[in-house]
Amino acid sequence: MKALGKHLLLELNDCDPKLLNDISFIKETMLVAAKAAGATVLGESFHQFSPQGVSGVLIIAESHLTIHTWPEHGYAGADIFTCGTRVKPEKAAEVIIEKLKPVTHALIKLDRGMINKNQKAKG
Amino acid sequence: MKALGKHLLLELNDCDPKLLNDISFIKETMLVAAKAAGATVLGESFHQFSPQGVSGVLIIAESHLTIHTWPEHGYAGADIFTCGTRVKPEKAAEVIIEKLKPVTHALIKLDRGMINKNQKAKG
Repeated sequence: MKALGKHLLLELNDCDPKLLNDISFIKETMLVAAKAAGATVLGESFHQFSPQGVSGVLIIAESHLTIHTWPEHGYAGADIFTCGTRVKPEKAAEVIIEKLKPVTHALIKLDRGMINKNQKAKG
Repeated sequence: MKALGKHLLLELNDCDPKLLNDISFIKETMLVAAKAAGATVLGESFHQFSPQGVSGVLIIAESHLTIHTWPEHGYAGADIFTCGTRVKPEKAAEVIIEKLKPVTHALIKLDRGMINKNQKAKG
């Protein structure tokens, strides 16, 4: 068996609310994270919410990175989904943790698309 | 305790490779899914890969939807991340399953951002 995709889910608690509400900082963090992983950014979409909160997605040649922040709760949820062996999603996770400085965090790793090595599509 | 976000992870196996490689079909599927959930689409980014495969993200006012397809393996991985009680991510999942017609699928539901109801950010 092999996994087509690696998916890291980051739960970031007790971050600085000011950082979580700073769209420029969040965007820069995600771009630096993607670069650290060795990913190729193809597209991006970041949004500032009122009264607070930021959402952002990066589509990369190797899948995606996303982040959603709740400054009022000091919480951010980030996802890093990659495929292939060249890109290192753990490096992106390290950057996000280092930049957002959560007091506590959780990192869940999931294998996506488990297939038999010689499995081909039908049809 | 309450969850700030609901995250549905969809594993779609043995889909029709032609559908999985059709960027227009995949984009339409995701937009219909977002609408079915009652989500407000703020941005989108879809990409066709060579020799095959499609990636797409929708950023919504309530978080995001993503999909990545591997036509050569008949597999697609989709994620639906929403916040608030008004939007129904399960409806989006139903649409994606109905349109992509996987022979088998798995649906994993995760609570993201578990907080105490009265928890406020420090700082």
